Amino acid sequence: MAKKPKNETVFPGNGGVAITRQPFPNSRKIYLKGTRGIRVAMREVIQTNAPGSKAHPPIAVYDTSGPYTDSEAEIDVHAGVPDIRSKWIRVRGGVEGLEGETSSYGQRRAADPALAPVRFQRVRKPLRAKSGERITQRYWARRGVITHEMEYVAIRENTRCKAKPGARVITPEFVREEIASGRAILPANINHPEAEPMIIGRNFLTKINANIGNSAVASSIEEEVEKMVWAVRWGSDTVMDLSTGPHIHETREWIIRNSPVPIGTVPLYQALEKVDGEAEALTWDLFRDTMIEQCEQGVDYFTLHAGLLRRFIPVATQRLTGIVSRGGAIMARWCQAHRRENFLYTYWDEACEIMAAYDTGVSIGDGLRPGSIKDANDKAQFAELKVQGDLTLRAWEHDVQVINEGPGHVPMHLIEKNMQNQLDWCHGAPFYTLGPLVTDIAPGYDHITSAIGAALIGWYGAAMLCYVTPKEHLGLPDKNDVREGVIAYKIAAHAADLAKGHPSAQFRDDALSKARFEFRWDDQFNLSLDPERCAEYRAASLPPDQGESKPYCSMCGPKFCSMRASHELCKDTKGSKPAPGRRKTAP
Amino acid sequence: MAKKPKNETVFPGNGGVAITRQPFPNSRKIYLKGTRGIRVAMREVIQTNAPGSKAHPPIAVYDTSGPYTDSEAEIDVHAGVPDIRSKWIRVRGGVEGLEGETSSYGQRRAADPALAPVRFQRVRKPLRAKSGERITQRYWARRGVITHEMEYVAIRENTRCKAKPGARVITPEFVREEIASGRAILPANINHPEAEPMIIGRNFLTKINANIGNSAVASSIEEEVEKMVWAVRWGSDTVMDLSTGPHIHETREWIIRNSPVPIGTVPLYQALEKVDGEAEALTWDLFRDTMIEQCEQGVDYFTLHAGLLRRFIPVATQRLTGIVSRGGAIMARWCQAHRRENFLYTYWDEACEIMAAYDTGVSIGDGLRPGSIKDANDKAQFAELKVQGDLTLRAWEHDVQVINEGPGHVPMHLIEKNMQNQLDWCHGAPFYTLGPLVTDIAPGYDHITSAIGAALIGWYGAAMLCYVTPKEHLGLPDKNDVREGVIAYKIAAHAADLAKGHPSAQFRDDALSKARFEFRWDDQFNLSLDPERCAEYRAASLPPDQGESKPYCSMCGPKFCSMRASHELCKDTKGSKPAPGRRKTAP
Repeated sequence: MAKKPKNETVFPGNGGVAITRQPFPNSRKIYLKGTRGIRVAMREVIQTNAPGSKAHPPIAVYDTSGPYTDSEAEIDVHAGVPDIRSKWIRVRGGVEGLEGETSSYGQRRAADPALAPVRFQRVRKPLRAKSGERITQRYWARRGVITHEMEYVAIRENTRCKAKPGARVITPEFVREEIASGRAILPANINHPEAEPMIIGRNFLTKINANIGNSAVASSIEEEVEKMVWAVRWGSDTVMDLSTGPHIHETREWIIRNSPVPIGTVPLYQALEKVDGEAEALTWDLFRDTMIEQCEQGVDYFTLHAGLLRRFIPVATQRLTGIVSRGGAIMARWCQAHRRENFLYTYWDEACEIMAAYDTGVSIGDGLRPGSIKDANDKAQFAELKVQGDLTLRAWEHDVQVINEGPGHVPMHLIEKNMQNQLDWCHGAPFYTLGPLVTDIAPGYDHITSAIGAALIGWYGAAMLCYVTPKEHLGLPDKNDVREGVIAYKIAAHAADLAKGHPSAQFRDDALSKARFEFRWDDQFNLSLDPERCAEYRAASLPPDQGESKPYCSMCGPKFCSMRASHELCKDTKGSKPAPGRRKTAP
Repeated sequence: MAKKPKNETVFPGNGGVAITRQPFPNSRKIYLKGTRGIRVAMREVIQTNAPGSKAHPPIAVYDTSGPYTDSEAEIDVHAGVPDIRSKWIRVRGGVEGLEGETSSYGQRRAADPALAPVRFQRVRKPLRAKSGERITQRYWARRGVITHEMEYVAIRENTRCKAKPGARVITPEFVREEIASGRAILPANINHPEAEPMIIGRNFLTKINANIGNSAVASSIEEEVEKMVWAVRWGSDTVMDLSTGPHIHETREWIIRNSPVPIGTVPLYQALEKVDGEAEALTWDLFRDTMIEQCEQGVDYFTLHAGLLRRFIPVATQRLTGIVSRGGAIMARWCQAHRRENFLYTYWDEACEIMAAYDTGVSIGDGLRPGSIKDANDKAQFAELKVQGDLTLRAWEHDVQVINEGPGHVPMHLIEKNMQNQLDWCHGAPFYTLGPLVTDIAPGYDHITSAIGAALIGWYGAAMLCYVTPKEHLGLPDKNDVREGVIAYKIAAHAADLAKGHPSAQFRDDALSKARFEFRWDDQFNLSLDPERCAEYRAASLPPDQGESKPYCSMCGPKFCSMRASHELCKDTKGSKPAPGRRKTAP
């Protein structure tokens, strides 16, 4: 098929929503080669150079955007993005192809002719572990096997292609050890072979997640696919589809088939949808069928609110803001109505068996996360966290990959305790936090309040940070909110990586700052998290008669530019290195 | 004069820029009474109540917006805001009224008929300390005198009017002690009697500063006045006028006369303007005259880059990003050109004498603050910080009130060292930091990168946080950028106050969260930092047929609202308090 560069593909479904695929300026997709045919996608930023000069080398940066920003790639949302993992999965073995979906709900949806217009047409037959076989990345890691996926992430985590001699380098073996120990997970459902492997663990780059999803009052399938593409464009490492409205099943299929990043869900939302929103009507059988349905579509990790036990509920209802987790509130309602223990807890081993069969990871939800500063670090929250720890061990017995979810609303001085307790009680499993928001008083700006907490807890060791958008507490985020939220969290995650001393972090700051100091405006922008916004802001600030390459900006004007003055100083002091003996403090 | 509520006053100068004065919804200005006729302005948020109920009491919050948000106040930008301090200053004594401005530049500007159209007309005759007398707040504090201003700030800092029994309360005597020790300053130039007293010190609420100012390529006088009003509306505690273009003198007069908050400047910018941008042409005499000019207008604090010594320059020019402080670059240039020591350092005692005569505080600038992650905490930076400490002691000998400026760009793990060194070397004087920015890679979003660092260093003890707007590194901020920057910094400051355990912090979070949990949308919004944006976001998210008072939002829709479900749980569990013995962790 002829390859042609494209900027936008119009989504052919109803609505005609365009999928954004404009590459970033002066950037191209490169593929770093591993063994066994592995090709790891990265974004290479080409810096400007004077004619004949190579003073400013290309800089490769971690890239979550998948083929959408590859001008050479053909994008067809009806075909999905390329399958890069099926052959690896087959080579490892232990899996069998199914005739079709085994969940009764999945079968009904597949057979319903009324759904044809919204159905993704090229559904691959699902895979599942053979009876008695284990196939998860954790299983292989514990067996001592370095999977293709592990090698892929080892290359990917060494963003700085040419590491300095002696610099810490992330090896495939290190990746394997981290997964085997449970300190990291590599979410990679065998039915989502389109996903580019990535790793979540505190000894790796800090990851972020963006939530998308329609709700009863807004949004459409097409918009959700574009939101996913949009979220990964700005840097989201995973995407959670939290849809709660109609066509959840079909929306999810479109998203997964087109997603180059792992997809997470909260199966409880769909289960509740199936019983018309009546929490009391939920059953384990229905939930079980929903898990299988989603595992066979390729969901890479589930949030399961299994740690919220019945006896914690009266404690939680005494709080200023009660239960603010949707999943938590649903399970609490079920427990109260039936006067029985949380069925996710009761059927935990069976749930783990299902997840293990597809290598769907589990994110053990924090249904009792605090929803206000007042409720932070209270008994209800920490009681649940201890149960999360117990459930972690039990999931590991099934070789399920596990992460633990954390708060929520927590003032800065109480954040470290969360991380410490999670480390102490959850056996080293990765911590995945929502923010935390460090104050309650800024609705409309909660991407900022939560980025502060996220940066802190990332530094302390949280492995993945779930974004919060400016619309949190107020409404469903639109595309601009998703961008604002993702960038705020890329900032938090990168700040955490700098503070942790990750070897693939500071080179980007240094390259950008050098470009800034040398008035290479385009390079500065293209190395930043949002080149488009930088260019837009600078253009808006410059009067029409000012060239783009001027060595100053409208902030200080030409006379007061400190960087310009600093260059003149450098010329003046050239060669006059300070004598060490004179570098004392003032007399 | 008849009082009438007004929403906007059209500024009568050229341009017709409107001054914003719409009070926030459901808020009114209240005045808490002290002794000696003191009236402290606050904003009272009236919460909604069911008819006949008083369940949700009014909440008073700290208010920097001055008379602009008082619907009863008459605003006339040609007259300035009310003089509230002149009588206090006269009662204390030690000051004399001057016949007119004593700076030669001020005299020339006053005599120039061409400036009549841009000149503020009702200039009060300046005051100055009598020869041999001391009149600063530090002087009175050390004498054991509780000034009116000290009592004012003690009332103001106890935002929570009705403190719980046993709660820590900030007393006038505590304020006096903190000022006497140098741990806090109360910036209050005797020629700026319009300013509402406020205090900067780490044992008080964390303050924020917004920079405004035209530059050679943008902005006008009218816009600058409105920017000041706009900045204090959103919560800026002080405003620095960093104008560098034409009519600096006249712009400043308009700003000060209309400002209810202390005004800071960097006199070096104007001094450089006077010598047409040629740093080499600066002289102490010219600088001295500029200081006097600005002291007599009423500038409350000066940034002076006196700690940048000549011998530090070769060290700084080796850096990745050299010298990024404008003032620092100018002084370095001067030192190099003349091969002489920084004249601000040489003439420090004389500078202090001038400032002491008007009670202009000094913010000792950090001309060598790091401009990139790479340069953080380096020798140049810390060498200057030690000199800042020495200069602090010398300024205190003149009873000048002192704060120290700090970085800059610093990764999270290096921030605490900055605070620790400042405490160790600067004798407890308040620390006033620009951010710091915790990464370099997010131009366009540096209000966020810097709010993370600001929150951290505020928690560690920085007393005032200088805001950064989204346009930092890119261009001159517009009004929306100012709002974004101020709110980001109010978040950082409040997060710091919560973490420090300031007694006037958490009550607002609790009140807002209670309103949120009870679906009192208006109360939630009105208690927030930006009620207008909240209302706008919610309105945009709701489809037209949804009433504003619905107990859910478009984020989750009605079926999935956790708070709603939580309320139902509360009803279910009413009276069923958990038995303490059963609150154990999971088996």
